[in-house]
Amino acid sequence: MAVYTDVSAEQLGAFIAGYDLGELLSYKGIAEGVENSNFLVHTARGHFILTLYEKRVAAGDVPFFLALMEHLASRGITCPQPVHNRDGKTLGKLAGRPAALVTFLEGMWMRRPDAKHCIALGAALAELHLAGADFTKKRTNALSVSGWRPLYEACCERADGVQPGMKTAIEKELSFLETSWPRDLPQGVIHADLFPDNVFFLGDQLSGLIDFYFACIDTLAYDVAICLNAWCFEPDHSYNVTKGRGLLQAYMKVRALSDAELEALPVLCRGAALRFLLTRLVDWLDVPPGALVKPKSPQEYFRKLRFHQAAISVRDYGVEAGKAFA
Amino acid sequence: MAVYTDVSAEQLGAFIAGYDLGELLSYKGIAEGVENSNFLVHTARGHFILTLYEKRVAAGDVPFFLALMEHLASRGITCPQPVHNRDGKTLGKLAGRPAALVTFLEGMWMRRPDAKHCIALGAALAELHLAGADFTKKRTNALSVSGWRPLYEACCERADGVQPGMKTAIEKELSFLETSWPRDLPQGVIHADLFPDNVFFLGDQLSGLIDFYFACIDTLAYDVAICLNAWCFEPDHSYNVTKGRGLLQAYMKVRALSDAELEALPVLCRGAALRFLLTRLVDWLDVPPGALVKPKSPQEYFRKLRFHQAAISVRDYGVEAGKAFA
Repeated sequence: MAVYTDVSAEQLGAFIAGYDLGELLSYKGIAEGVENSNFLVHTARGHFILTLYEKRVAAGDVPFFLALMEHLASRGITCPQPVHNRDGKTLGKLAGRPAALVTFLEGMWMRRPDAKHCIALGAALAELHLAGADFTKKRTNALSVSGWRPLYEACCERADGVQPGMKTAIEKELSFLETSWPRDLPQGVIHADLFPDNVFFLGDQLSGLIDFYFACIDTLAYDVAICLNAWCFEPDHSYNVTKGRGLLQAYMKVRALSDAELEALPVLCRGAALRFLLTRLVDWLDVPPGALVKPKSPQEYFRKLRFHQAAISVRDYGVEAGKAFA
Repeated sequence: MAVYTDVSAEQLGAFIAGYDLGELLSYKGIAEGVENSNFLVHTARGHFILTLYEKRVAAGDVPFFLALMEHLASRGITCPQPVHNRDGKTLGKLAGRPAALVTFLEGMWMRRPDAKHCIALGAALAELHLAGADFTKKRTNALSVSGWRPLYEACCERADGVQPGMKTAIEKELSFLETSWPRDLPQGVIHADLFPDNVFFLGDQLSGLIDFYFACIDTLAYDVAICLNAWCFEPDHSYNVTKGRGLLQAYMKVRALSDAELEALPVLCRGAALRFLLTRLVDWLDVPPGALVKPKSPQEYFRKLRFHQAAISVRDYGVEAGKAFA
């Protein structure tokens, strides 16, 4: 949680004057979001989220993210919509950073999602995948299998200090995934970071998806695997098969998963667990004293990885391959 | 900037149900405020600020703060107004913390206030002092002169590590202030922390005062001294006499300062500088690795203290004692 770059009222007033949004009335830095600086902005025309893209987001990628949000919104996905300035542009510059205004979405994220939230998420994820099918811009997933070894090399010498045996376990898993990663499954737009804090609910209704700043073109079922990791484990790191089955069945009602996708799911889940284990490990070891952001524990994903390694088939996740889904 | 205590949607929904505010629509942790956790809350009835009072605020003091905000608002001061729940109470409990909802104020705080902001602040401070005159609750200032030695003792052994010579300089200043502190000047409600981030503007108009969580009964002119320290120095720590004169003259147009108050101003300014030097020093030395809050530099107030020590009279601040103010 952080605001890395502060913005003065004068700077923001001048920026807002470039839009048809009326007078600036207030703005507050938001204590959410780890990658970028976010402000909730109130103008005479309504509420908006202002994002300043910080160093971990490549400036060249921002047009992809903004175009994707516009595309998805036009296909009926409830997600923030980039606001166009008087020159028709959605991307500007503020306080030396690439900056964009998007519409504000009502809703709350679930700190402890239950099975019905997982069901809603599964359906929304499939709708997202379908809505992205005719999106034409491309962005490679820098955090897919080929990106994991450099992360591993950046932190492996200190991994055992976090948990004894971690270095060898990661090395072994990495080698396994590099040879076993499925490369011919259906691809498309994936969110790639659809954790509970990026999914809003009003009551039990899913009301919107946010934070598309890891979105890319990659294996669709890998996005499912990321969500199984992020939504279907209990605080004690045990897998909740009711949540997992709910998520998968709801997904498959909207977009069928082929047998090949279902059979690959345990490996995809291992990859997803390793990806978050590695980035958390790097963040954990890199955090400077006095840092604004408290890093998340890598151990959580080490435990989840163990579960996936022990899984024999997609049956362990609550559904079956080789059967038409009713 | 921080949210120390997170709140789940379920917890907050149940809390909001105790008020006549309609459905909870969204809430976001705000990356401002160092002492408490603050959330911007949107319900069907409007926007509110939710504050969870953290350990540095004594729970027994919260009713004083809330009653003061209500009192001041009823006297025409634009400040957050505590919202009453269905039982008529303004103070509740949420996530194990004392918690209150107050109205949301529009406006922006000035990162670099200029002379006209200082003039507006001076008038608003005097209005605050007048509006507080008939407030009957009491709260001692724990951070006035008698509270400074314990702070000094908590950090003196490490002060020279921050800046060589600091320990002796503070010890000397403390002894001087303990014997010279003026104790018979007019007292009343003071804000005690009216820094730029607690004063909102819309354009050049002052639109509201916030954060009354250091407010107490103390010497009114000491509040003026705190504001001179907080508003009238340049980034290079030089005193800007135009800003100081503007602040003081605007204050005196609303509430006259007696000759005794004016003559005491250099000593009161020394006290105010020492108070913020000491609390910043303690925070600076106490910050744990990975802390959410980046502490403010103590040196800034050490430099300001040097200015006040060199001041001969209130003339050095831009006004004169012994003359009726026109």
